[in-house]
Amino acid sequence: MVDFNVTILGCGSAKPTLRHQPSSQIVNHGGTFYMIDCGEGTQMQLVKCGFRQGKLRHVFISHSHGDHCLGLVPMLSSFALEGRSYDLNIYASSDLIEFLQNQISFFIHNASFEIIFHSIDCQHPTVIYTDAKLKVTAFPLNHRVPCYGFLFQENMGERHIKKDCITQYHIPYDRIKEIKCGADYTLSNGVVIPNADLTEPPASARSYAYCSDTRPVMRWAELLNGVDLLYHEATYSNHYQSLAVEVFHSTAEEAATFAIQCHAKRLLLGHFSSRLNGEDELLQEALRIFPNTSLANEGLEVRIG
Amino acid sequence: MVDFNVTILGCGSAKPTLRHQPSSQIVNHGGTFYMIDCGEGTQMQLVKCGFRQGKLRHVFISHSHGDHCLGLVPMLSSFALEGRSYDLNIYASSDLIEFLQNQISFFIHNASFEIIFHSIDCQHPTVIYTDAKLKVTAFPLNHRVPCYGFLFQENMGERHIKKDCITQYHIPYDRIKEIKCGADYTLSNGVVIPNADLTEPPASARSYAYCSDTRPVMRWAELLNGVDLLYHEATYSNHYQSLAVEVFHSTAEEAATFAIQCHAKRLLLGHFSSRLNGEDELLQEALRIFPNTSLANEGLEVRIG
Repeated sequence: MVDFNVTILGCGSAKPTLRHQPSSQIVNHGGTFYMIDCGEGTQMQLVKCGFRQGKLRHVFISHSHGDHCLGLVPMLSSFALEGRSYDLNIYASSDLIEFLQNQISFFIHNASFEIIFHSIDCQHPTVIYTDAKLKVTAFPLNHRVPCYGFLFQENMGERHIKKDCITQYHIPYDRIKEIKCGADYTLSNGVVIPNADLTEPPASARSYAYCSDTRPVMRWAELLNGVDLLYHEATYSNHYQSLAVEVFHSTAEEAATFAIQCHAKRLLLGHFSSRLNGEDELLQEALRIFPNTSLANEGLEVRIG
Repeated sequence: MVDFNVTILGCGSAKPTLRHQPSSQIVNHGGTFYMIDCGEGTQMQLVKCGFRQGKLRHVFISHSHGDHCLGLVPMLSSFALEGRSYDLNIYASSDLIEFLQNQISFFIHNASFEIIFHSIDCQHPTVIYTDAKLKVTAFPLNHRVPCYGFLFQENMGERHIKKDCITQYHIPYDRIKEIKCGADYTLSNGVVIPNADLTEPPASARSYAYCSDTRPVMRWAELLNGVDLLYHEATYSNHYQSLAVEVFHSTAEEAATFAIQCHAKRLLLGHFSSRLNGEDELLQEALRIFPNTSLANEGLEVRIG
């Protein structure tokens, strides 16, 4: 199986603290890096965590609050200075894209690479990226401004051909691809070897969901059903429940309840308020409801699935 | 004498490194904070260095390159979140002001404080700020885009009244201010005590100059004559002299030569290139020409005068 993990670059909320950076994370699937959100200072976090920018090809911005996107233009400026050659795809709401384009025109001249923008303005879950191995679905969250969650799902891969069958039946190299796709194989004497005897099913598809910033949105529990890892914001503890409602954030208990609804396998809490003295209170609150809960932290890498 | 010092928040150049933050510094004069430049991450540096934002009243931006101004909107966003009440004055070129106003409209709604913009578009040295104690003069530098240096000068204060004269001549409290301003004092018997007998001259005015980013501009040596502390960019060592010319920066040797021309009392080098493995080479290069040279570093506080 290819690598599939997420590394937290920042898991604080809007007001900065010495404990946490603003939101950003890197999803690594098979050596390609997908960034989610890009708060101030993200480029330094990339360097600190040892990520090479050349492998970063896609940046998904959940919404237009500064702590989720104000690190983008500084990062792109540095990429231009470094003479980056690879295209970079940016997925964001249309109004943020227009704003970013103005910023880029102002600060970055003669960039050595293409920046390709993709609008997210969906009312319903919408696939915004797909390749042979992975697809990303955006789904609307419930925040003060339009805001999107992201579901990363592996596409079911090809079936695996059994190596001993290749030897036994003298299967030529140029037939392997079609067998991996489900074809039977006919021997020179006319005997048909069924695909089920030649191959094994692909590994099950793994998935990761990012939900920040938002009130819990129970109607997405089915979309996220069985997700291997759920990152959900837990800006506040229950002590601030009415504030969470007022400013469209979640408590740790609400995040854990949502994880239960999704039948998530693991929950990672993030987007911690500067009002907290630490996050242990959030962890304890969530653990009472959903035992497989962890706290995000800068530099933390979590395997998906 | 009131406190007069500068604290370095960032002294790196455009491409970030783990050694240095982008440009920003705080000039403290008598407990009021004046910020020069505001690169990405400046708000975190403010917190790390223990500065209370309420005392920051003026921000001077040298030019519109991202490493000198992209921390401004994130910092203002946080000030708004914190419910700041004090006005904040921002001094920058007109095009940058227009750009910042757009950013602020997009990211900051219902700010609890006023942001007051002041254009700097001068061709000649121009006083852009003055109060009873301090004045700030902007002067054009020589960079790839319009860029300004800043000279902070104490205004010559009032004369100091001799305490024993107050007792000896029974000077009433309500006459002291005019005597400090130069008035003589007439006794009840008509005898005039000359001001020179009643007072001592004020302490000599101290000064600080900031020159970044720029080629050395020898024609400002007279303007900066005798400056107590000169911060001058030294992006490169002599090894990169032709690159320095090409991209409108300075070498350490050039900064030191300029300090000599200015009869500066002390030189502080900054804006270090990411190409350097460290800055000792810059220091040695400058020390050969101007012995009272130091290297800037994040958190360094230098007394002025």
